[in-house]
Amino acid sequence: MKPLTPDRLAIHTQTTKPWTLAEACAAYAAAGIGGVCPWVEHVEPVGVRQAARIIADAGLGVPSYVRGGFFVHPDAERRKQAIVRTRSLLDDAAVLSAEMLVIVPGACPEVGLDDARTMVAEGLAAVAQHAAEVGVKLALEPLHPMYAADRSCINTVAIARAVCDRVGHPALGVAVDVYHVWWEPGLAEQIASLGREGRLLALHICDFKAETTHLLLDRGLMGEGVIPIREIRGAVEAAGFCGLAEVEIFSERWWATDQMAFLREIVKAAATSA
Amino acid sequence: MKPLTPDRLAIHTQTTKPWTLAEACAAYAAAGIGGVCPWVEHVEPVGVRQAARIIADAGLGVPSYVRGGFFVHPDAERRKQAIVRTRSLLDDAAVLSAEMLVIVPGACPEVGLDDARTMVAEGLAAVAQHAAEVGVKLALEPLHPMYAADRSCINTVAIARAVCDRVGHPALGVAVDVYHVWWEPGLAEQIASLGREGRLLALHICDFKAETTHLLLDRGLMGEGVIPIREIRGAVEAAGFCGLAEVEIFSERWWATDQMAFLREIVKAAATSA
Repeated sequence: MKPLTPDRLAIHTQTTKPWTLAEACAAYAAAGIGGVCPWVEHVEPVGVRQAARIIADAGLGVPSYVRGGFFVHPDAERRKQAIVRTRSLLDDAAVLSAEMLVIVPGACPEVGLDDARTMVAEGLAAVAQHAAEVGVKLALEPLHPMYAADRSCINTVAIARAVCDRVGHPALGVAVDVYHVWWEPGLAEQIASLGREGRLLALHICDFKAETTHLLLDRGLMGEGVIPIREIRGAVEAAGFCGLAEVEIFSERWWATDQMAFLREIVKAAATSA
Repeated sequence: MKPLTPDRLAIHTQTTKPWTLAEACAAYAAAGIGGVCPWVEHVEPVGVRQAARIIADAGLGVPSYVRGGFFVHPDAERRKQAIVRTRSLLDDAAVLSAEMLVIVPGACPEVGLDDARTMVAEGLAAVAQHAAEVGVKLALEPLHPMYAADRSCINTVAIARAVCDRVGHPALGVAVDVYHVWWEPGLAEQIASLGREGRLLALHICDFKAETTHLLLDRGLMGEGVIPIREIRGAVEAAGFCGLAEVEIFSERWWATDQMAFLREIVKAAATSA
């Protein structure tokens, strides 16, 4: 397996959250990073057109724009708003020349998981044609079961594939984030199936620390935790994926450090532990 | 469905952790609770024979003794120790007249999940005959995937059933804890299968708070979270389970309150929200 050199990485702007989009892009480019995955939180302060210029000027690729979806709500009006919002984010993704929009499916304490999964399928079906028209893929991202209460009713690659089957639209695929699915039984087979189905859109990397202190904001840098990242990357590449590996680390611990030093650690960790 | 009156509940001593075994048993009995699930941590300070007397004097049933297992370790000697320890806990469970010993399977950052699952199957196979001889069931408990790093490589009822198939011993069954598996796709079917297979040994109840602040010690009282507890209990009872529902809540928040008041809240919550 080829090592993950900086040019084979894209970094989610949320990974270096303290930086503005311009700061992040300049630093990534200087470090020889291949791409950036802008988060809405970093794009909105400058506007999408200016964001597109910043990224283009830095010469960075844009695998994904992050993030739309959140299709689950007991109120039909709110579900409709999520669809409208996601369509608008697809337009923005196209302006940013992003290959895909990451879809966080959503979940809601008031909605049972079966119903929630139906709402996600309906939401995706309602935006898929628009995605195809603007030339942006929908990357459905299964999230760890610890987010099943309020962020995602899609918690395994297996469920994500079932939703893709149900929607049946070629604009729809799956983003595999090692943090969320590393524990999934039969993961390698699931990834191989995604490849065969033409639905393997992305690989997100970070690590799961055995002593995780916060459900959301204590992700580890590659090598700090227990995930067999290289093994999963091997399965993803064997399934035909050849895009940039996306570094997505939310960590209050790392955010509190010098981000330039953190970026150097990311580059090192990708080479040695992913 | 019949309401969960106090006599249909058993309480894990860890739920009212600040109490000694004697204090817990006296309070449970006074509240009309049907049973107690003693934890090793509450039994060891008094010794198992004295613990058995305390429980018998209180007139409480003992669905389960908690907890053995932890079969996963890279070092073969440590794995052997876990087996020896679990056999000894089975002896203690028999002294306590417990129906089953809860098995926390174990996981270890250094051991891949596939290998870990093999170690669990090997550990269970090595203690199953002893369990049958002392008349205590082995209740394999799948734990939430957020514990896959260091506590349990068995994270769904589906995987637990596969391990049971692999071990193939009638002393082995599964404990269904709503906290761990509420999000599992096809849960009702999995539970029905457990019933058909004669492997449905226990129902543990508590709740998963949408705003969980700690991976281990922030469980909710029934009704404080998002789990459709009554729906799951319905599936469990429809599958033939008619034992006591075990209340297992680890909560620093609740432990910091008056435990007698907490016990009253448990009784109320079981009646209204489970």
